[in-house]
Amino acid sequence: MSKTNEPQISIIPLGGRKEIGNNMIVIEDDENIIVLDSGIMFPQDDQYGVDLIMPDITYLIDNKDKILGFFISHGHEDHIGAIPYVLREINVPIYGTRLTLGLIQLKLKEFGLHHDAQLIELAPGEKITVGNFTVEFIHINHSIPDSVAMAIKTKVGTILYTGDYKFDHTPIDGKPANLQRLGEIGSEGVLALLGDSTNAEREGTTLSEQVVSKTIEDVFKLSNNRIIISTFSTNIHRIQQIFTAAWKTGRKVAITGRSMINVINIASQLGYLNIPEGTLIELRKTKSLKPNQIVLLMTGSQGEPTAALTRISRGDHRQIEIIPGDTVILSSMPIPGNERSISQTINHLYQQGAEVLYDGMIDAHASGHACQEELKLMINLIRPKFLIPVHGEYRHLYHHAKLAEQVGIPKENIFITDNGVRLNLTSDRCWVAGSVPSGEVMIDGLGIGDVGNIVLKERKMLSENGIVIVSLTIDGKKAKVLAGPDIISRGFVYIRKSKELIEEAQDLAREALKELEAKNITDWSAIKKAVIDSIDNYLFQKTRRKPLILPVIMEI
Amino acid sequence: MSKTNEPQISIIPLGGRKEIGNNMIVIEDDENIIVLDSGIMFPQDDQYGVDLIMPDITYLIDNKDKILGFFISHGHEDHIGAIPYVLREINVPIYGTRLTLGLIQLKLKEFGLHHDAQLIELAPGEKITVGNFTVEFIHINHSIPDSVAMAIKTKVGTILYTGDYKFDHTPIDGKPANLQRLGEIGSEGVLALLGDSTNAEREGTTLSEQVVSKTIEDVFKLSNNRIIISTFSTNIHRIQQIFTAAWKTGRKVAITGRSMINVINIASQLGYLNIPEGTLIELRKTKSLKPNQIVLLMTGSQGEPTAALTRISRGDHRQIEIIPGDTVILSSMPIPGNERSISQTINHLYQQGAEVLYDGMIDAHASGHACQEELKLMINLIRPKFLIPVHGEYRHLYHHAKLAEQVGIPKENIFITDNGVRLNLTSDRCWVAGSVPSGEVMIDGLGIGDVGNIVLKERKMLSENGIVIVSLTIDGKKAKVLAGPDIISRGFVYIRKSKELIEEAQDLAREALKELEAKNITDWSAIKKAVIDSIDNYLFQKTRRKPLILPVIMEI
Repeated sequence: MSKTNEPQISIIPLGGRKEIGNNMIVIEDDENIIVLDSGIMFPQDDQYGVDLIMPDITYLIDNKDKILGFFISHGHEDHIGAIPYVLREINVPIYGTRLTLGLIQLKLKEFGLHHDAQLIELAPGEKITVGNFTVEFIHINHSIPDSVAMAIKTKVGTILYTGDYKFDHTPIDGKPANLQRLGEIGSEGVLALLGDSTNAEREGTTLSEQVVSKTIEDVFKLSNNRIIISTFSTNIHRIQQIFTAAWKTGRKVAITGRSMINVINIASQLGYLNIPEGTLIELRKTKSLKPNQIVLLMTGSQGEPTAALTRISRGDHRQIEIIPGDTVILSSMPIPGNERSISQTINHLYQQGAEVLYDGMIDAHASGHACQEELKLMINLIRPKFLIPVHGEYRHLYHHAKLAEQVGIPKENIFITDNGVRLNLTSDRCWVAGSVPSGEVMIDGLGIGDVGNIVLKERKMLSENGIVIVSLTIDGKKAKVLAGPDIISRGFVYIRKSKELIEEAQDLAREALKELEAKNITDWSAIKKAVIDSIDNYLFQKTRRKPLILPVIMEI
Repeated sequence: MSKTNEPQISIIPLGGRKEIGNNMIVIEDDENIIVLDSGIMFPQDDQYGVDLIMPDITYLIDNKDKILGFFISHGHEDHIGAIPYVLREINVPIYGTRLTLGLIQLKLKEFGLHHDAQLIELAPGEKITVGNFTVEFIHINHSIPDSVAMAIKTKVGTILYTGDYKFDHTPIDGKPANLQRLGEIGSEGVLALLGDSTNAEREGTTLSEQVVSKTIEDVFKLSNNRIIISTFSTNIHRIQQIFTAAWKTGRKVAITGRSMINVINIASQLGYLNIPEGTLIELRKTKSLKPNQIVLLMTGSQGEPTAALTRISRGDHRQIEIIPGDTVILSSMPIPGNERSISQTINHLYQQGAEVLYDGMIDAHASGHACQEELKLMINLIRPKFLIPVHGEYRHLYHHAKLAEQVGIPKENIFITDNGVRLNLTSDRCWVAGSVPSGEVMIDGLGIGDVGNIVLKERKMLSENGIVIVSLTIDGKKAKVLAGPDIISRGFVYIRKSKELIEEAQDLAREALKELEAKNITDWSAIKKAVIDSIDNYLFQKTRRKPLILPVIMEI
């Protein structure tokens, strides 16, 4: 890797650049590799039927002997979601804080991988040396507890990776981000800053969780009805506020939703959630309480189809129905792409007589990501030589770069590159040096990577216009059609109303096949082409739709 | 209809209640019907392959002899889009202002219906009597010129329909809404107010177009580069501002995008757009200008896949490429559901070196719909006895009702009902009186209403997991399989990687069929069931996916 005697390292993001999700960054020197985070991404609308996306880890598999470990900044899906898939290929130690490891463990259990995994706890403030790297965890604020930034000492200097962060001066757990340590590290000299860009378009600073705390308490106090509140199951600070507010206002909390129950269990066991004695009750016990004594806490703040609140809004939940007058709080913000499902949930809840409160009407949520003033603060605490914006779509990386220039980082020292691009650094230089295999791998059901562009393209065609199957049986030797052509369709037209259309199409296909018989043609591809050509235009003329036409030939 | 001698009318919204789009309201007395607006709606994400939605007009067709005419409030798609489909079934006069009729004419030409249509112009301030109804058009502000509210005198009293509106005290065309006339009508007594609810959740008032005017002019002045600006093609006030700002800052405007060109033509011809001499030039002539002399005006503000700006962002436009430094302005707001496509467009534009400005960063857009203070103003100008909130999802209607209560409309005089529900009114009472056929009709290609829930459900299954076709030929008399079973799939797995899976599945199907042969079963449904059952679970176990399994049987 090194062409001169000058020490050199590489930073190679495999995900998280120009996308939100899939966070995974390789730090490599001539001997070893460490990897920061290992996340997944959720599919876009046009990735039909796909469950998850993860980064292409070919480079990691090809270099598995060099990898000393994964260092995980916090327990969100876009930072831990790919770990099971990675561990199936490469068994390396995973370093994280206690809560983060607890959530990883939960995930590994689902995959049956928890026995063999090496999970090594590192607390905020602690450091560990692996190979030529010394990694120090630094306490930072985010929308999940036990989140850390990382200072990585390398041969050429210190790299600071922010992970996902904000600066909350009045956080719920009473622990503001470790500004002093960040300042110290900055004064010792930081070569490169890998910085969270999510809110780089937003002016000012992020709301403190205390503001949301107060809002939730006020609503609990003023309402005479049941409170139904949904939030992200990993937002343990928010969940803490809900329990505290319930306790203060004489209410009890019942929870519903598998991921909510799981996370609350882990968080309580590990000491990250302090549930006041007697505040948590079973769902069925709420029947004996008065409405103003009840809080129902659940998933569904993003309108996810199978989540509790969404099912309740559709009248689909086996145990909970809306009672007119219920106060429903959506304590979250729409993740881009989910606006319509959330809106639908809200409409349904109103329609059933609930009073629905959401961000915009009240301060029901505070973001977990630094806005512009906090980003500038981070840069001024750290004063890196080089800035590598991460964790954002292009527009976010772009704005992060722009504000970095405003605070004095020279434009040529800011790098916005694609996933897979190798950035080499010496103690005073940084440059693009080629790239490694990278990309998105789509996971659908148990299949990893076998749903590629072809399958997606087929699904897209099928979703828009359906399929028309033309089946026929031929006598291979005599070039004669023995049965068919029969036409069946799915997702194209409503058959009962379109009999004539289908019969016409069958006639056209039959004529085309007769011509081929007359010419004694037995070649399957000629037959298929003739069938498609015969009805393609006809169907389009009659319907202005282009279904997938699939000839199915059987030969006797 | 009338059970007593007391005069009575009915108000029946056929669309636009609990949805945004499909606006169509029936006003009926014992002799006649008039219809207010005739709009369409755009499909949701789960309405695969559907082009448009329109209201079910069965009730209009069943009562066509009673219909005296359609009165159209303004030229937006969700108020005029269904007219061609309606006119095919019922040929009745269409009343509208000059620009509205011009846009309707444009649409009818596309359908070849312009020759037979009776389009009757009514100017703001004018009134006309048809049957027992007298309809008066009242000038109102909206995001398209020539928008009107309507005062409809009936046997029982005056109904005021707001259409879509805002109150802009400094509108671009210099014509504020006719507050005096609204006040007069209010003082004469209004029985029911049919009011636009779109922005009922938003506090305060809507920005005036003048604010946007200033912003656009500032950007044009300060930029030394090309300006590329996209907006809704029907936002003629905005287009006027763009031409005016261009003229003021020494720039020329070229336009691209079919709907933009069409609307600008109509609007100029009819006198709604005043293009300063020499400001409009052909696209190819911009080559000879300096960057700071150019404005390119186009469609694509919603990230629509085929629109000009979207194609440019993908590098797909035959005539226009981004030049680094270009200033791109998205002069619009995301319509809910379009956030991701717009975000993608923005990312791509940044990546190509453009400076992108959009609402939130600058005041690039003003809504066309009244916010809370304007809604209260309308209610206080009109002081209706009854309020019927329209043009909104349930949440919007709900909030409109809530603020109406705040200004003193009694709760029992506010009606939020479903489409199709008949509201009867006498001079002092209003009540729900049954309902008429109503609903959504999906239009896909040329097919109207033939894509129903079944077809959509099929398309959804196909889009998520694809289809597996099992074809076989049997000898009907001998219960023997002559050919197959052969398996073909589309959108399920990538065949080359999944040969083994498919072959295993074929074996399982073959065994199942052998069992049936042994029992001499020739019943097609038994065969189909056996085939599906044999591979259903197997495929799910192996892939965790549930494709549509389609047995195709040919019989000789």
